[in-house]
Amino acid sequence: MPAHRSAFYPADAEFADRVRASFDRQKAMAHLGASLADVDAGRCVIQLPHHDAVTQQHGYIHGGVVGAIADSAAGYAAMTLTPADSSVLTVSYTLNLMAPAAGDHIEAHGEVVRAGRTLVVTRADVFAYKDGQASLCATLQQTIMVLANRPER
Amino acid sequence: MPAHRSAFYPADAEFADRVRASFDRQKAMAHLGASLADVDAGRCVIQLPHHDAVTQQHGYIHGGVVGAIADSAAGYAAMTLTPADSSVLTVSYTLNLMAPAAGDHIEAHGEVVRAGRTLVVTRADVFAYKDGQASLCATLQQTIMVLANRPER
Amino acid sequence: MPAHRSAFYPADAEFADRVRASFDRQKAMAHLGASLADVDAGRCVIQLPHHDAVTQQHGYIHGGVVGAIADSAAGYAAMTLTPADSSVLTVSYTLNLMAPAAGDHIEAHGEVVRAGRTLVVTRADVFAYKDGQASLCATLQQTIMVLANRPER
Amino acid sequence: MPAHRSAFYPADAEFADRVRASFDRQKAMAHLGASLADVDAGRCVIQLPHHDAVTQQHGYIHGGVVGAIADSAAGYAAMTLTPADSSVLTVSYTLNLMAPAAGDHIEAHGEVVRAGRTLVVTRADVFAYKDGQASLCATLQQTIMVLANRPER
Repeated sequence: MPAHRSAFYPADAEFADRVRASFDRQKAMAHLGASLADVDAGRCVIQLPHHDAVTQQHGYIHGGVVGAIADSAAGYAAMTLTPADSSVLTVSYTLNLMAPAAGDHIEAHGEVVRAGRTLVVTRADVFAYKDGQASLCATLQQTIMVLANRPER
Repeated sequence: MPAHRSAFYPADAEFADRVRASFDRQKAMAHLGASLADVDAGRCVIQLPHHDAVTQQHGYIHGGVVGAIADSAAGYAAMTLTPADSSVLTVSYTLNLMAPAAGDHIEAHGEVVRAGRTLVVTRADVFAYKDGQASLCATLQQTIMVLANRPER
Repeated sequence: MPAHRSAFYPADAEFADRVRASFDRQKAMAHLGASLADVDAGRCVIQLPHHDAVTQQHGYIHGGVVGAIADSAAGYAAMTLTPADSSVLTVSYTLNLMAPAAGDHIEAHGEVVRAGRTLVVTRADVFAYKDGQASLCATLQQTIMVLANRPER
Repeated sequence: MPAHRSAFYPADAEFADRVRASFDRQKAMAHLGASLADVDAGRCVIQLPHHDAVTQQHGYIHGGVVGAIADSAAGYAAMTLTPADSSVLTVSYTLNLMAPAAGDHIEAHGEVVRAGRTLVVTRADVFAYKDGQASLCATLQQTIMVLANRPER
């Protein structure tokens, strides 16, 4: 298969600071207990420890919460490549849940698939970690819209 | 267009109690502040008041939280039609966010589109309420799997 | 549930002619044997007779062909509401196949869910007809982008 | 990111013959002009030359046709891993169209993301080739159902 994840060139050298500041303003992420584990050009990792408040009826992390974390990881991956004076919003995402989100914590790894000027297509894979072993539990495909000349702050 | 939402015949007369009990075991729903507003054959409504802990960076309800609420409403709509000794799990969902979830509260209205024996296809529309006025802010299309002979409790 | 399909007000009185002319330029639709059965504000119906050339290995209409018909019906539903000097393109769609597309013909009924200035969210339900009886075989949720000042011709 | 595409172990050594025989029975693929370019464990490539009969109004390959090719490539990737006496069907797929399918031909590269016993999650990337240069034009995320003890023939 042809390589299609070309190197990404951020339009704003301060992209990581901008993403971290935005993440810190998302009270929902703090309320769920999520943290920003890594930010790089075209990529973003969000981590969520397993704790009672985010579980569904079987004690695993709720699928909708998995989706919220994956949505954010993929959206922030997109934001790493947008201009400083723009903001991003999620147009849509499709989440496939493949295994229970069981273990100590989950990590959502978002990455840009294609960065257009107005629309950015991204993906995220979500891994559940148990005793240091990662297993893929969900995957997401997302469409992000870039709002030009609309800085977040 | 032909009418395609035929009347639904629940396999379990106690479906509403079963759904309510399951919802009460989802700690994530309580943590977000969501409540089960209505349960009927093939339908389920979940309500979420606007409060700081579920917001994103602009002060609206986080899109991923909207997705979590819509996922639950649609999944429980499916569960109203499944046998008492079965359980359900989300295979996948696609969420389109169409307007900011602004206002006093949101309601996710889930409904069954087609109930197969193993797979159930559902939808949910999410409305944001402001001063008594509802506006559609998101819509979801979902696939649910029925696990036969696997009662939730 | 609140009514959310408000009446639609086409921006271009000639929308039906514009849609029909565009459909006639889609050689893929002719090649598949599809025809435009109905066009109305915010709605569009495309019909496809069952014939050997569009079948999969079991003799039913191929799921991907069902998707192509549904994508077009939903996209043209969006186009009924856009300005005369704009064009539309599909950003993404999610298709759920729920039953074999068996029978004499299928009809895809597309409708607009929400028409924004830049993005339009649509749905389509696909019915298979056998001896005059319709049964729902697929459903689609779609995102359309409007390109302003870019007439199709 | 943890490696999550583990090596795939086909349950049926004759998987490639089985996939090729099934593809040959899909009259829709022949009608569109598609051919099976490659089959490997957990992977499948389908090729479609650009020709008038598959185009939309701007002369590019129709997005719905791109979806049909990608759906088949991903579905056959799943089929490489299923038992000889089973068959597969598409439950749902989400297609993102990212660039016009312009050029000489397109290739859809399907691959398995996770193979469960009943459900298989797959992806496909679609590349447009022009003068030997590949560019990513679409991506798909798909859910496949395995029907045990239901050989295709």
